[in-house]
Amino acid sequence: MSLEGRFEDGVVRVGGDARQRYHDSRGYGYPLEGNEIALAPIEAAHLLYRGDLEAVVDENGDRLEFRSFLAREPGPDFGVRFLVYADLRSRGFYLSPASEPWLDEPPETDFAVFPRGKGPGDGEVAYALQVIGERTDVPARDLEAGVLAVVDEESEITYFEVARRDPTGSSASSLPEGCEADLLADRVVVWEPPLGLYEETFYGQPLEGREYDEPTLQCSLLEAAYLAERGAIDLEPATVRERGREVEGERFDRRFRVYTELRERGVVPKTGYKFGADFRTYADVDSVDDLGHSELLVRVHPADYVFEPRDLALDVRLAHGVRKTMVFALVDEDGIEWWSLERLTP
Amino acid sequence: MSLEGRFEDGVVRVGGDARQRYHDSRGYGYPLEGNEIALAPIEAAHLLYRGDLEAVVDENGDRLEFRSFLAREPGPDFGVRFLVYADLRSRGFYLSPASEPWLDEPPETDFAVFPRGKGPGDGEVAYALQVIGERTDVPARDLEAGVLAVVDEESEITYFEVARRDPTGSSASSLPEGCEADLLADRVVVWEPPLGLYEETFYGQPLEGREYDEPTLQCSLLEAAYLAERGAIDLEPATVRERGREVEGERFDRRFRVYTELRERGVVPKTGYKFGADFRTYADVDSVDDLGHSELLVRVHPADYVFEPRDLALDVRLAHGVRKTMVFALVDEDGIEWWSLERLTP
Repeated sequence: MSLEGRFEDGVVRVGGDARQRYHDSRGYGYPLEGNEIALAPIEAAHLLYRGDLEAVVDENGDRLEFRSFLAREPGPDFGVRFLVYADLRSRGFYLSPASEPWLDEPPETDFAVFPRGKGPGDGEVAYALQVIGERTDVPARDLEAGVLAVVDEESEITYFEVARRDPTGSSASSLPEGCEADLLADRVVVWEPPLGLYEETFYGQPLEGREYDEPTLQCSLLEAAYLAERGAIDLEPATVRERGREVEGERFDRRFRVYTELRERGVVPKTGYKFGADFRTYADVDSVDDLGHSELLVRVHPADYVFEPRDLALDVRLAHGVRKTMVFALVDEDGIEWWSLERLTP
Repeated sequence: MSLEGRFEDGVVRVGGDARQRYHDSRGYGYPLEGNEIALAPIEAAHLLYRGDLEAVVDENGDRLEFRSFLAREPGPDFGVRFLVYADLRSRGFYLSPASEPWLDEPPETDFAVFPRGKGPGDGEVAYALQVIGERTDVPARDLEAGVLAVVDEESEITYFEVARRDPTGSSASSLPEGCEADLLADRVVVWEPPLGLYEETFYGQPLEGREYDEPTLQCSLLEAAYLAERGAIDLEPATVRERGREVEGERFDRRFRVYTELRERGVVPKTGYKFGADFRTYADVDSVDDLGHSELLVRVHPADYVFEPRDLALDVRLAHGVRKTMVFALVDEDGIEWWSLERLTP
C-alpha cells in the first residue's frame, strides 16, 4: 500500500509502516511520537520520485504528487539539493540533512553523507557535503573542509574534496653572495653565477645556446627579489620589488609573500604559467638533474576573493590532467591559508 | 675577422663584409648606401649573442658587448622580443621587424616571420607575430589575426594562433508547441515533452531513474528562455530571462545572445561547465544517439574585456587536452565577434 505524507511545520509526517520501511531500513527521516516519522522536504521529494510515497498533502489540503511538490521548491536551493541527494542515493549512500534531530552535533553544511554500508545511527560521517549551482559565488572566506558538490546547468554533478593543505619540502637552500645581475624590464639576468644556484637550488633558467662555458641565468622578478633580499645578487631589493609592482600591480606583493613562504618551507616555486597557475612547486629538490615532476599547482588570491565554480572546475580539471594537485593560497595581512581542491568520485 | 657595429639613429650600422655575411645570406637588417647595412637593435643583439658581432659602439663611444647591450634595453619589451627572436632563429626561421624598410607594407605587429626556407626578399609572410610577457594585459579589442608569442617568467615561450572564427552547423531545428514546464530557482523542468525535443534537437537533459515512460527534461535557464520565446514551452519568456538575471546578473543576457546566435546558426550549445567554459558546441546534431564529440569550447566575454595571458594559457591548454578548439565570443551592442585561439608549434 502506498503511503501519503502530511506537510506540517516544515517537515512531512508519514504514518503507517513508514518508520520501518523508510527510517529503520533505509535511513530516511527521524522518529516522532506514536509511529510516525518526520521527513525533510528533500527526503519526501525523493520518496515521491521513487514512487514510495504516493503524495504529500499540504497545509491547504492540496494533494501534491512529485511534480507539484518539486515545483513548490519547499526549501532553499531545492532543485540542486534534490539532484545531489538523488545522485548519492543512487550510488548507494545514506545521507541526512546536516541538522538536528537527524544528527546530533551536525557539521555546519547541507548534508552528512555516511560511509557506504553505514547509516545515520552508526555515528560516522564520511563527507560533510555542501551543494551549490554552477552560478553560485563561493567566497574564499567561506571555504570549509569537506565535499563541495557543484550542479551544472544540465544537472550534471561534480564533486570536489576541499581540504586545508600544508606545503612542506626539503629542498636545498644555501645561496651564493653578491652575484652580478642586471634588471631588465620584466626579468633579471644573473651573469655567470656559481653553478649551484641553478643546479642545486633551482633558481632561474639558463640562457641556452651561448658559446661560453658558465651559464648565464635568467630569473623572474620574484626570484630576483628573494635573492636580492638575501644578498645573493647585487641588486637593490626595493628596486626589484618596485619593478615587480610596475609590471603587475598589487599582485606582485601577494605572489612574493607566497613565494617567500614556500621557499622558507623548503619548497621550490617556479612559474605555473603554462598551467594557468601562479606556481608549480617541487618539494624535494636536491639536484636539477634528478628533478621529478612538480606536485602542486598554486594559485594566489587575496583572502577576500570570490570564486566562480566554473573557474574552480577549470583549474582542478587541468591540474588533474597533468597529475598535480590544485592548491589555492589565500593571502591577507594576517598570513596565508592554503586549500587544496581535488575531484572526488563518491 | 669579427665585426663591430655603430649605434646611430636607432639602428646599428655595420660595414666590412656584413652585407654579404648577415644580410644576403642570413636575412638580417637592410642595405644602406656604400656597403653598410643597418640592423634593428634586436638583430644586433642576436649577432652579438652568437659571437658574429664583437661589440657595438654607442653614441658616447662606449664599446658594448652582448651583456651591456642587452642591459641597455634599446627598445620596448626588449628582453621578451629578443628571446622570441632567438627562439625562432634557432628553429630555422628568418624573421624581420615588421617595419619599413625591412618590409614593404609591413603588417601591424612586432615581427614578420617567413616560411621555412624563405627570407625577407621572397615576399611571403608565414606569421604576423606579436610578442608579450605573461603579465601583459591583452585587451579583447586589440586581438589581431596572427600569432601571439607569450614569454613566461622563465623565458619559456608559448605560441598561439589567433584567428577569426565563424561557427556554423546543420543541426535539426523544429520545435514543439506549448509543452508544460515549471520554473525552479535556477533551472526549468519540462514535463513529458515530445521525444524529439531531446532526442533530435538536444534541448535539456532527461531526469533519470523515473519509473515512468515519457522522459521529463531538465533545461537550463538559457535553453528555457530560448524555447519560451518560440512558444515551445508554456512559460513567459520575460519571467525566465528575469530569473536568469537574478541568478547570474548581466552575464545572463550576454550568454543568451551567444546561445541564440549559435542556435540560429544550426549549432547546438550545451553547458561547458566541466571544461570551465560557457558552452561546448556540436555542429551537426541529427540525433542524440549518434552524437560525436563537441568541437568547440566557447567562453563569452564583453567586447571590452581584458585577457590575462595566464588565463588564455589555461583555457587553450584544457581545450587542447580534450581535443576541442577554444573560441571566445566577444559581445557588445553591435554584435558578436568570434575568435579562436590554438597552440602552435612554429
